[in-house]
Amino acid sequence: MNRIFAGAVTLMLFCACGGHNDKTDNMMCEKEQMTDSGIVRLSKIKVNPDYLEEYMKFATEVGAVSLLTEPGVLTMYAVADKEDPCNITILETYASQEAYRAHIASPHFQKYKQGTLHMVDSLRLDDVTPLNPDNVIVNYIKQK
Amino acid sequence: MNRIFAGAVTLMLFCACGGHNDKTDNMMCEKEQMTDSGIVRLSKIKVNPDYLEEYMKFATEVGAVSLLTEPGVLTMYAVADKEDPCNITILETYASQEAYRAHIASPHFQKYKQGTLHMVDSLRLDDVTPLNPDNVIVNYIKQK
Repeated sequence: MNRIFAGAVTLMLFCACGGHNDKTDNMMCEKEQMTDSGIVRLSKIKVNPDYLEEYMKFATEVGAVSLLTEPGVLTMYAVADKEDPCNITILETYASQEAYRAHIASPHFQKYKQGTLHMVDSLRLDDVTPLNPDNVIVNYIKQK
Repeated sequence: MNRIFAGAVTLMLFCACGGHNDKTDNMMCEKEQMTDSGIVRLSKIKVNPDYLEEYMKFATEVGAVSLLTEPGVLTMYAVADKEDPCNITILETYASQEAYRAHIASPHFQKYKQGTLHMVDSLRLDDVTPLNPDNVIVNYIKQK
Protein backbone atom coordinates (compact mmCIF):
# COMPACT_ATOMS: atom_id res chain seq x y z
CA MET A 1 0.00 0.00 0.00
CA ASN A 2 2.94 2.32 0.66
CA ARG A 3 4.01 1.86 -2.93
CA ILE A 4 0.50 2.64 -4.14
CA PHE A 5 0.54 5.80 -2.03
CA ALA A 6 3.94 6.87 -3.32
CA GLY A 7 2.84 6.06 -6.85
CA ALA A 8 -0.30 8.11 -6.47
CA VAL A 9 1.65 11.12 -5.18
CA THR A 10 4.09 10.76 -8.05
CA LEU A 11 1.19 10.49 -10.49
CA MET A 12 -0.44 13.55 -9.00
CA LEU A 13 2.74 15.59 -9.32
CA PHE A 14 3.38 14.21 -12.81
CA CYS A 15 -0.14 14.99 -13.98
CA ALA A 16 -0.20 18.32 -12.21
CA CYS A 17 3.13 19.43 -13.56
CA GLY A 18 3.45 17.63 -16.84
CA GLY A 19 6.72 19.36 -17.52
CA HIS A 20 5.08 22.64 -18.53
CA ASN A 21 6.82 25.86 -17.63
CA ASP A 22 4.59 28.22 -19.54
CA LYS A 23 2.63 30.20 -16.99
CA THR A 24 0.12 31.30 -19.59
CA ASP A 25 -1.53 27.88 -19.63
CA ASN A 26 -2.18 28.04 -15.88
CA MET A 27 -0.37 24.75 -15.25
CA MET A 28 1.81 23.88 -12.31
CA CYS A 29 5.43 23.54 -13.35
CA GLU A 30 7.45 20.46 -12.55
CA LYS A 31 8.77 20.70 -8.97
CA GLU A 32 12.23 20.01 -7.59
CA GLN A 33 12.87 17.84 -4.56
CA MET A 34 13.65 19.57 -1.26
CA THR A 35 17.43 19.51 -0.65
CA ASP A 36 19.64 19.97 2.41
CA SER A 37 20.09 23.64 1.51
CA GLY A 38 16.32 24.13 1.28
CA ILE A 39 14.46 26.78 3.24
CA VAL A 40 11.27 26.54 5.31
CA ARG A 41 10.19 30.02 6.39
CA LEU A 42 7.41 31.97 8.00
CA SER A 43 7.39 35.47 6.53
CA LYS A 44 5.48 37.89 8.76
CA ILE A 45 4.31 41.11 7.19
CA LYS A 46 2.48 44.01 8.79
CA VAL A 47 0.67 45.90 6.07
CA ASN A 48 -0.29 49.57 6.30
CA PRO A 49 -4.10 49.48 6.65
CA ASP A 50 -4.46 52.16 3.96
CA TYR A 51 -3.05 49.74 1.40
CA LEU A 52 -4.40 46.41 2.61
CA GLU A 53 -6.71 45.67 -0.30
CA GLU A 54 -4.07 46.57 -2.86
CA TYR A 55 -1.40 44.59 -1.01
CA MET A 56 -3.60 41.47 -1.01
CA LYS A 57 -3.75 41.58 -4.82
CA PHE A 58 0.03 41.80 -5.14
CA ALA A 59 0.59 39.01 -2.60
CA THR A 60 -2.00 36.72 -4.16
CA GLU A 61 -0.51 37.22 -7.61
CA VAL A 62 3.11 36.63 -6.61
CA GLY A 63 2.12 33.50 -4.69
CA ALA A 64 0.21 32.01 -7.60
CA VAL A 65 2.79 32.86 -10.27
CA SER A 66 5.65 31.56 -8.09
CA LEU A 67 3.90 28.24 -7.40
CA LEU A 68 2.79 27.83 -10.98
CA THR A 69 6.09 28.67 -12.67
CA GLU A 70 9.02 28.13 -10.30
CA PRO A 71 10.33 24.56 -9.96
CA GLY A 72 12.03 25.39 -6.66
CA VAL A 73 9.11 27.16 -4.97
CA LEU A 74 7.46 24.24 -3.20
CA THR A 75 5.11 26.12 -0.87
CA MET A 76 3.77 29.66 -0.78
CA TYR A 77 0.68 29.77 1.41
CA ALA A 78 -0.40 33.18 2.67
CA VAL A 79 -2.92 33.84 5.42
CA ALA A 80 -4.26 36.97 7.14
CA ASP A 81 -5.18 37.13 10.83
CA LYS A 82 -8.94 37.25 11.24
CA GLU A 83 -8.57 39.70 14.15
CA ASP A 84 -6.19 41.99 12.29
CA PRO A 85 -6.01 41.25 8.55
CA CYS A 86 -3.01 43.58 8.28
CA ASN A 87 -0.98 40.78 9.89
CA ILE A 88 -0.01 38.47 7.05
CA THR A 89 1.91 35.22 7.46
CA ILE A 90 3.31 33.29 4.51
CA LEU A 91 4.54 29.71 4.80
CA GLU A 92 7.26 29.48 2.18
CA THR A 93 9.45 26.54 1.27
CA TYR A 94 12.21 26.60 -1.31
CA ALA A 95 13.94 23.46 -2.58
CA SER A 96 17.43 24.99 -2.31
CA GLN A 97 19.35 28.22 -1.87
CA GLU A 98 19.56 28.42 -5.67
CA ALA A 99 15.79 28.15 -5.90
CA TYR A 100 15.43 30.99 -3.40
CA ARG A 101 17.88 33.18 -5.30
CA ALA A 102 16.01 32.46 -8.54
CA HIS A 103 12.77 33.42 -6.81
CA ILE A 104 13.93 36.79 -5.52
CA ALA A 105 15.46 37.59 -8.91
CA SER A 106 12.25 36.72 -10.79
CA PRO A 107 10.23 39.47 -12.51
CA HIS A 108 7.06 38.53 -10.61
CA PHE A 109 8.81 38.74 -7.23
CA GLN A 110 10.44 42.05 -8.16
CA LYS A 111 7.05 43.38 -9.27
CA TYR A 112 5.62 42.40 -5.86
CA LYS A 113 8.61 43.68 -3.89
CA GLN A 114 8.93 47.04 -5.60
CA GLY A 115 5.18 47.47 -5.92
CA THR A 116 4.49 46.93 -2.21
CA LEU A 117 7.51 48.59 -0.55
CA HIS A 118 5.40 51.58 0.50
CA MET A 119 2.58 49.34 1.77
CA VAL A 120 4.63 47.29 4.23
CA ASP A 121 5.11 48.60 7.78
CA SER A 122 7.33 45.71 8.87
CA LEU A 123 8.69 42.41 7.63
CA ARG A 124 10.16 39.47 9.54
CA LEU A 125 11.63 36.39 7.86
CA ASP A 126 11.68 33.57 10.43
CA ASP A 127 13.42 30.46 9.15
CA VAL A 128 12.02 27.38 10.81
CA THR A 129 12.56 23.63 11.16
CA PRO A 130 9.66 21.22 10.71
CA LEU A 131 9.20 19.12 13.86
CA ASN A 132 8.48 15.93 11.92
CA PRO A 133 10.41 15.24 8.69
CA ASP A 134 7.73 12.70 7.72
CA ASN A 135 5.04 15.39 7.79
CA VAL A 136 4.74 16.51 4.17
CA ILE A 137 2.91 19.43 2.59
CA VAL A 138 2.03 19.61 -1.10
CA ASN A 139 0.94 23.06 -2.22
CA TYR A 140 -0.65 23.86 -5.56
CA ILE A 141 -2.94 26.31 -7.33
CA LYS A 142 -6.36 24.81 -8.04
CA GLN A 143 -7.04 24.67 -11.77
CA LYS A 144 -10.17 26.53 -12.92
CA MET B 1 -5.78 18.57 -18.19
CA ASN B 2 -7.70 20.08 -15.30
CA ARG B 3 -9.72 16.92 -15.08
CA ILE B 4 -6.58 14.81 -15.13
CA PHE B 5 -5.18 16.95 -12.33
CA ALA B 6 -8.36 16.68 -10.27
CA GLY B 7 -8.49 12.98 -10.96
CA ALA B 8 -4.91 12.52 -9.87
CA VAL B 9 -5.53 14.38 -6.62
CA THR B 10 -8.62 12.28 -6.02
CA LEU B 11 -6.64 9.14 -6.78
CA MET B 12 -3.91 10.22 -4.42
CA LEU B 13 -6.37 10.86 -1.62
CA PHE B 14 -8.22 7.63 -2.38
CA CYS B 15 -5.04 5.59 -2.41
CA ALA B 16 -3.59 7.42 0.56
CA CYS B 17 -6.69 7.03 2.64
CA GLY B 18 -8.35 3.91 1.38
CA GLY B 19 -11.04 4.24 4.00
CA HIS B 20 -8.80 2.94 6.77
CA ASN B 21 -9.24 4.38 10.21
CA ASP B 22 -6.97 2.03 12.10
CA LYS B 23 -3.96 4.03 13.16
CA THR B 24 -1.95 0.88 13.80
CA ASP B 25 -1.49 0.27 10.07
CA ASN B 26 0.10 3.72 9.62
CA MET B 27 -2.37 4.66 6.89
CA MET B 28 -3.90 8.06 6.25
CA CYS B 29 -7.63 8.03 6.94
CA GLU B 30 -10.11 9.27 4.36
CA LYS B 31 -10.38 13.06 4.57
CA GLU B 32 -13.45 15.29 4.64
CA GLN B 33 -13.86 18.32 2.40
CA MET B 34 -13.31 21.76 3.92
CA THR B 35 -16.69 23.36 4.75
CA ASP B 36 -17.86 26.91 5.45
CA SER B 37 -17.52 26.26 9.19
CA GLY B 38 -13.93 25.05 8.74
CA ILE B 39 -10.99 26.53 10.62
CA VAL B 40 -7.58 27.65 9.39
CA ARG B 41 -5.36 28.51 12.34
CA LEU B 42 -1.85 29.37 13.37
CA SER B 43 -1.27 28.07 16.88
CA LYS B 44 1.72 29.76 18.51
CA ILE B 45 3.29 28.02 21.48
CA LYS B 46 6.16 29.17 23.65
CA VAL B 47 7.69 26.13 25.28
CA ASN B 48 9.62 26.20 28.54
CA PRO B 49 13.23 25.51 27.47
CA ASP B 50 13.60 22.92 30.24
CA TYR B 51 11.00 20.75 28.52
CA LEU B 52 11.66 21.44 24.85
CA GLU B 53 12.88 17.99 23.86
CA GLU B 54 10.03 16.27 25.65
CA TYR B 55 7.49 18.72 24.23
CA MET B 56 8.70 18.02 20.68
CA LYS B 57 7.90 14.32 21.11
CA PHE B 58 4.35 15.04 22.31
CA ALA B 59 3.73 17.55 19.51
CA THR B 60 5.14 15.28 16.81
CA GLU B 61 3.01 12.37 18.01
CA VAL B 62 -0.26 14.29 18.26
CA GLY B 63 0.29 15.77 14.79
CA ALA B 64 0.96 12.41 13.17
CA VAL B 65 -1.90 10.57 14.91
CA SER B 66 -4.35 13.39 14.15
CA LEU B 67 -3.44 13.49 10.46
CA LEU B 68 -3.42 9.73 10.15
CA THR B 69 -6.69 9.01 11.94
CA GLU B 70 -8.97 12.08 11.92
CA PRO B 71 -11.05 12.64 8.77
CA GLY B 72 -11.59 16.30 9.68
CA VAL B 73 -7.98 17.21 10.48
CA LEU B 74 -6.77 18.36 7.08
CA THR B 75 -3.51 20.04 8.06
CA MET B 76 -1.28 19.87 11.12
CA TYR B 77 2.16 21.15 10.22
CA ALA B 78 4.39 22.17 13.12
CA VAL B 79 7.61 24.17 12.84
CA ALA B 80 10.13 25.55 15.34
CA ASP B 81 11.96 28.86 14.88
CA LYS B 82 15.59 28.26 14.03
CA GLU B 83 16.63 31.23 16.18
CA ASP B 84 14.57 30.15 19.17
CA PRO B 85 13.27 26.57 18.87
CA CYS B 86 11.04 27.19 21.90
CA ASN B 87 8.80 29.20 19.55
CA ILE B 88 6.56 26.65 17.86
CA THR B 89 4.00 27.47 15.17
CA ILE B 90 1.45 24.95 13.96
CA LEU B 91 -0.59 25.45 10.79
CA GLU B 92 -3.84 23.65 11.53
CA THR B 93 -6.90 23.27 9.34
CA TYR B 94 -10.11 21.54 10.34
CA ALA B 95 -12.86 20.70 7.87
CA SER B 96 -15.63 21.94 10.20
CA GLN B 97 -16.44 22.97 13.74
CA GLU B 98 -17.54 19.37 14.38
CA ALA B 99 -14.15 18.14 13.18
CA TYR B 100 -12.43 20.52 15.58
CA ARG B 101 -14.60 19.43 18.49
CA ALA B 102 -13.87 15.79 17.67
CA HIS B 103 -10.15 16.61 17.61
CA ILE B 104 -10.01 18.26 21.01
CA ALA B 105 -12.08 15.43 22.51
CA SER B 106 -9.81 12.73 21.06
CA PRO B 107 -7.61 10.61 23.37
CA HIS B 108 -4.43 11.56 21.49
CA PHE B 109 -5.15 15.30 21.78
CA GLN B 110 -6.01 14.94 25.47
CA LYS B 111 -2.78 13.00 26.02
CA TYR B 112 -0.86 15.87 24.39
CA LYS B 113 -2.80 18.61 26.15
CA GLN B 114 -2.63 17.16 29.66
CA GLY B 115 0.91 15.84 29.15
CA THR B 116 2.33 19.21 28.08
CA LEU B 117 0.39 21.69 30.27
CA HIS B 118 3.41 22.21 32.52
CA MET B 119 5.74 22.61 29.52
CA VAL B 120 3.91 25.46 27.81
CA ASP B 121 4.70 29.05 28.83
CA SER B 122 2.14 30.60 26.49
CA LEU B 123 -0.33 29.68 23.77
CA ARG B 124 -2.00 31.83 21.11
CA LEU B 125 -4.61 30.52 18.70
CA ASP B 126 -4.79 32.91 15.74
CA ASP B 127 -7.55 32.05 13.31
CA VAL B 128 -6.66 33.17 9.82
CA THR B 129 -8.09 33.54 6.32
CA PRO B 130 -6.14 32.25 3.31
CA LEU B 131 -5.49 35.10 0.86
CA ASN B 132 -6.16 32.93 -2.19
CA PRO B 133 -8.96 30.32 -2.05
CA ASP B 134 -7.39 28.59 -5.08
CA ASN B 135 -4.15 28.03 -3.17
CA VAL B 136 -4.48 24.49 -1.80
CA ILE B 137 -2.40 22.57 0.72
CA VAL B 138 -2.46 18.78 1.03
CA ASN B 139 -0.79 17.51 4.20
CA TYR B 140 0.08 13.89 4.90
CA ILE B 141 2.42 11.66 6.86
CA LYS B 142 5.01 10.00 4.64
CA GLN B 143 4.69 6.23 4.69
CA LYS B 144 7.82 4.37 5.82
